[in-house]
Amino acid sequence: MANRIPVGVLGATGMVGQNFIRLLENHPWFEVVYVAASPQSAGKTFAEAVKGRWHMSTPLPAKVSHLIVEDAGNVKAAQGKCALLFSAVDLDKKAIAALELAYAAAGFAVVSNNSAHRGTPDVPMVIPEVNPEHLDVIHCQRQARGWTTGCLVVKSNCSIQSYMTPIWALMQAGFAPKRIILTTLQAVSGAGYPGVPSLDIVDNIIPYIGGEEEKSELEPLKIFGRLENGVIVNNSEITISAHCNRVAVIDGHTACVSLEFAGAKPKLEEIIPLWRAFRAVPQELELPMAPKNPILYNDEPNRPQPRKDRDLDKAMAVTVGRLRKCHVFDIRFVGLHHNTVRGAAGGAILTAELMKAKGFIG
Amino acid sequence: MANRIPVGVLGATGMVGQNFIRLLENHPWFEVVYVAASPQSAGKTFAEAVKGRWHMSTPLPAKVSHLIVEDAGNVKAAQGKCALLFSAVDLDKKAIAALELAYAAAGFAVVSNNSAHRGTPDVPMVIPEVNPEHLDVIHCQRQARGWTTGCLVVKSNCSIQSYMTPIWALMQAGFAPKRIILTTLQAVSGAGYPGVPSLDIVDNIIPYIGGEEEKSELEPLKIFGRLENGVIVNNSEITISAHCNRVAVIDGHTACVSLEFAGAKPKLEEIIPLWRAFRAVPQELELPMAPKNPILYNDEPNRPQPRKDRDLDKAMAVTVGRLRKCHVFDIRFVGLHHNTVRGAAGGAILTAELMKAKGFIG
Amino acid sequence: MANRIPVGVLGATGMVGQNFIRLLENHPWFEVVYVAASPQSAGKTFAEAVKGRWHMSTPLPAKVSHLIVEDAGNVKAAQGKCALLFSAVDLDKKAIAALELAYAAAGFAVVSNNSAHRGTPDVPMVIPEVNPEHLDVIHCQRQARGWTTGCLVVKSNCSIQSYMTPIWALMQAGFAPKRIILTTLQAVSGAGYPGVPSLDIVDNIIPYIGGEEEKSELEPLKIFGRLENGVIVNNSEITISAHCNRVAVIDGHTACVSLEFAGAKPKLEEIIPLWRAFRAVPQELELPMAPKNPILYNDEPNRPQPRKDRDLDKAMAVTVGRLRKCHVFDIRFVGLHHNTVRGAAGGAILTAELMKAKGFIG
Amino acid sequence: MANRIPVGVLGATGMVGQNFIRLLENHPWFEVVYVAASPQSAGKTFAEAVKGRWHMSTPLPAKVSHLIVEDAGNVKAAQGKCALLFSAVDLDKKAIAALELAYAAAGFAVVSNNSAHRGTPDVPMVIPEVNPEHLDVIHCQRQARGWTTGCLVVKSNCSIQSYMTPIWALMQAGFAPKRIILTTLQAVSGAGYPGVPSLDIVDNIIPYIGGEEEKSELEPLKIFGRLENGVIVNNSEITISAHCNRVAVIDGHTACVSLEFAGAKPKLEEIIPLWRAFRAVPQELELPMAPKNPILYNDEPNRPQPRKDRDLDKAMAVTVGRLRKCHVFDIRFVGLHHNTVRGAAGGAILTAELMKAKGFIG
Repeated sequence: MANRIPVGVLGATGMVGQNFIRLLENHPWFEVVYVAASPQSAGKTFAEAVKGRWHMSTPLPAKVSHLIVEDAGNVKAAQGKCALLFSAVDLDKKAIAALELAYAAAGFAVVSNNSAHRGTPDVPMVIPEVNPEHLDVIHCQRQARGWTTGCLVVKSNCSIQSYMTPIWALMQAGFAPKRIILTTLQAVSGAGYPGVPSLDIVDNIIPYIGGEEEKSELEPLKIFGRLENGVIVNNSEITISAHCNRVAVIDGHTACVSLEFAGAKPKLEEIIPLWRAFRAVPQELELPMAPKNPILYNDEPNRPQPRKDRDLDKAMAVTVGRLRKCHVFDIRFVGLHHNTVRGAAGGAILTAELMKAKGFIG
Repeated sequence: MANRIPVGVLGATGMVGQNFIRLLENHPWFEVVYVAASPQSAGKTFAEAVKGRWHMSTPLPAKVSHLIVEDAGNVKAAQGKCALLFSAVDLDKKAIAALELAYAAAGFAVVSNNSAHRGTPDVPMVIPEVNPEHLDVIHCQRQARGWTTGCLVVKSNCSIQSYMTPIWALMQAGFAPKRIILTTLQAVSGAGYPGVPSLDIVDNIIPYIGGEEEKSELEPLKIFGRLENGVIVNNSEITISAHCNRVAVIDGHTACVSLEFAGAKPKLEEIIPLWRAFRAVPQELELPMAPKNPILYNDEPNRPQPRKDRDLDKAMAVTVGRLRKCHVFDIRFVGLHHNTVRGAAGGAILTAELMKAKGFIG
Repeated sequence: MANRIPVGVLGATGMVGQNFIRLLENHPWFEVVYVAASPQSAGKTFAEAVKGRWHMSTPLPAKVSHLIVEDAGNVKAAQGKCALLFSAVDLDKKAIAALELAYAAAGFAVVSNNSAHRGTPDVPMVIPEVNPEHLDVIHCQRQARGWTTGCLVVKSNCSIQSYMTPIWALMQAGFAPKRIILTTLQAVSGAGYPGVPSLDIVDNIIPYIGGEEEKSELEPLKIFGRLENGVIVNNSEITISAHCNRVAVIDGHTACVSLEFAGAKPKLEEIIPLWRAFRAVPQELELPMAPKNPILYNDEPNRPQPRKDRDLDKAMAVTVGRLRKCHVFDIRFVGLHHNTVRGAAGGAILTAELMKAKGFIG
Repeated sequence: MANRIPVGVLGATGMVGQNFIRLLENHPWFEVVYVAASPQSAGKTFAEAVKGRWHMSTPLPAKVSHLIVEDAGNVKAAQGKCALLFSAVDLDKKAIAALELAYAAAGFAVVSNNSAHRGTPDVPMVIPEVNPEHLDVIHCQRQARGWTTGCLVVKSNCSIQSYMTPIWALMQAGFAPKRIILTTLQAVSGAGYPGVPSLDIVDNIIPYIGGEEEKSELEPLKIFGRLENGVIVNNSEITISAHCNRVAVIDGHTACVSLEFAGAKPKLEEIIPLWRAFRAVPQELELPMAPKNPILYNDEPNRPQPRKDRDLDKAMAVTVGRLRKCHVFDIRFVGLHHNTVRGAAGGAILTAELMKAKGFIG
């Protein structure tokens, strides 16, 4: 654990920030030495700042508890303390966009959980098992923006992670999708804290999550896009329709997916072995946060289920089940992932590990 | 309340049976005078038979509580006591099929909540607002089977009721569907009692309900079918793909629907007025159980929701919301209905009212 | 329905206010003609003011939806429009206390759901079945404060209603309690909206409700108190210890009660008939909101249960069960009531009915 | 991990059995080499026997999955394979009682999770932090029953574990309890699978668990009892009244406790340090399953909470909070433990570790 890279967390007191703190506690490569949050928290120890609102089910890591929280708006405060910053700041979208650029311009490698820069063409949105080569945009980003050591990389929305890797595994095998209609059943932790009122979710579901369907329909196109002239050009051959629902589940987003292929169609019996055999760059590089098997297929007729499958392989695996013929499109399946780990902090950490392995950090 | 038609409930002690008892308590046309169940319950008063397992939230109706439960397998026991029987017997499918035919042959009008005869071509499967004219098959049924006063009519599966009426309203207006992909979020009451174990549903969803997807894909084709040569011929122009999920909701099935039209496509802004204006035979006849408006459209962006909308208009209305363009098909919407009322006992009672109004009973 | 008394609701847009609107919709004596809320809502129609946050499961009453919301802080706005005001304003305690006095001084009969005046000695805190005679303090109140038609009456905290009537029925029969230790399991609706975050209650309980235990231990002493020199003197012979918990229940507070008698002890077998036979002034006067039987005893070993029993008798009955010997004190039982009806708006309406019947209004 | 003691699990396919399998997967001292269950499972591999009903959230341990399940009724089948047996057989109480004696007579050290022998005077019921010296009864047990290597030890009911250690810590410090009134809010996992129907627990609580209150009132008296003439004599100075409720929580039993001391009363401010400093034999011996701190006190006003605190210290710690004065007795507090780990399989494993350390096994 010696010689770990010092890292910081922006927005460290919020739900995603707390997950970063929790997941990085014993990380072999990274060590949290810097925490920043809103001006109200600044100046307090981290323990004081989260008093009464530490929402993790593991205790507050001792080392981090003593760190003094800095003002996340103060870019200079982080200088000299760390090279990598995980961003989970909670501001309006425009302010986040500006702040993350300021950190990158100041020389920090920034990996953001926010949506502010997901549409920025020279900012890669990375799922490490799917589009690791998009990190190469960082070179163009640095050149175009005059940055040297700094860079900005973002994580995609949590709602899409239950099916992106399974679909990518099919694409890799030559089976490109054309049209996808899907419905998600999303956990309440995705809305942060206090988030969803209990009066809206006990004995109820909410068939709407603001902005989620738009992100679910657009972000996959960038992730499945190609590098061209220093930016990422969206895939224009896939159309997606997403219905997003909130359900009474603490963690774990489930997606029911119907998919039509563009050209070659795999046989049903080909797909499961293909998913089970799928490995990608994070597995080859044996990144610390990488699941051994990115896609787990469960043969039981009634799986995956959030409470029973979300924690598999450090909560970083996607569990798939119920592969069957679709009477309207070609195939149907159900995918599940842990939204606050794989879909948020854990996915961002894996991305940072990939950046480190590829030489973009430090 | 004088001169009410005496009716019986087969399988009266189960969940659906109890709902029949509850909903018929103050019915203006029908009076429960006969209850039958398994041999273990036979001979007891109804109150004794359901002791410790009366699951309704209204008290056991006093009159019914004193009725002696008969053996549902004994067709003769019902003779002379009632002309109309609601069937919710819980046997294997084959035994139900035989028993319901036996009751019809013995002269009873049988309205069944079971799936045993849903595929029988001369047995109408009726949603009173959608295909009331299918009741005319009864004439052929009687003639072909040599029945005089008896007849057999079935109710469709609960899972499909959230979208059948809204789709029918579009069909009536000239907008026929071609392809439908939908996902349901179904209440635990649909599985009866004891039904879904709490360990499977607290902080969880189950992405599978045995047999439900097949029913959801097939039954609409019969309901949208046409009478021909004394039987109902399925609609062959619609294809449906259904994903059925169980969620932690007590009552109320929600469906997320993506729909492609076959020919003419309505403008989005035409559809809501069309749904709101929709009325059908049960409304024209002012049947006691008929909702005033079969389709309620809720403009709020996050509705319908099961706990908040399921009870509207005697729990017999379907609430629709979130009508919007589908990026893959033509339109998307969310539908909701109360599965144990509109989707089960209440729907069967409305069907019986329609049968009475059309002269098929008594 | 002619000649109904015009009434107003202060804080009409909040959860308790909405319950007042809902419960008064078809009230035979009272008609809502006036609604007031915060300055932000003032000037809008009630329908606009609650748009997107009407939390009742019945539709917004048509008549009320068109009323223009007034500023609850403006006492004059209500003058000439109504004689009776239900108060559910949401301000800090001190501001509520002052405002309610101002309305009473201005001539209104005020029935408050707030805790601000529960400790005021000349303000009666009434459970109509328990201490209806406390209303006589109004005479002293008016005299001492120089009010003529105005008066101020409060409702007790919702947490205590599950056991106050059952204990009072025992007191009436000569069995006074000495010591009570009880634990409540309270519904999330008691915390209003947005109230309890779903992350705190799905797969969880919260063993704490701010201020609730203090109220549960103190308020019964006033309700069981006696009139003396124009004020209510607390009962000093009873000691109560309350543990208050929040559980994942929408409506319905449950209480597990262990009770020691002061002197005479009833036999266990005497108690149930005594509870079942209990009737009080609201029943004698046949007040519209009064339950026929204030106390329902359920013999099943596992009742009462909130979802199954909360709605009994207009949600105004208290359901009791599990009466048994306590190995430490004398008896144990479980009580349940609907916290937003009997425990809040419904209880306040019943109190107002009693005030009307006794000549204190209009 | 070499030279681990071979152990068996009786009733290995049930919920508690599965927890034994899960918790023993990487145990440093014990290795599961033998699994037995009902005759229907006998002859199958463990993986086949639990197919579709493996309820743990970690995958089935590979080694155990290949074991052939034996008939638990066949005592001889286990001979020569293991020396220690964990019993979680699911039979009627009498059959369990006979079977566990048969295994002990055949030379096995049996640690049982069942209630069948909890009342047997020469069978110790052990909470390792509370009454480790009760294991000495094994000598008398062996002598009286003519056993040589065999012995029988039982674990107490899960409901009582939330407060036994905290109360014992007070007793150790000289503050003996006299009277205790408590209410539990118990998780659904305590009822096994399928266990509690979801229709009984979603938006509901059940104020009754069959047999649980009796166990909660009686078992502490034996655990706090003394050895005398080769048997354990119950403590006769404590009286307990327990109200047991089932709530919509997956794992984690909470207890609200009011306690009166017999003689010396600690000051409130003495108690928390006393709890935090409490260590016992399992901690001194550094047993593998022992929590570092048996009692964790959480200062937050709204803790402990089951979902947030149940997993602390391998789910073996008891978390306590809300210590405050009781207006009726002396003190009040809330205790919480993980019912299927500390309260079941984990507690039994800790007991077996203690037995091993004290020389009673092998």
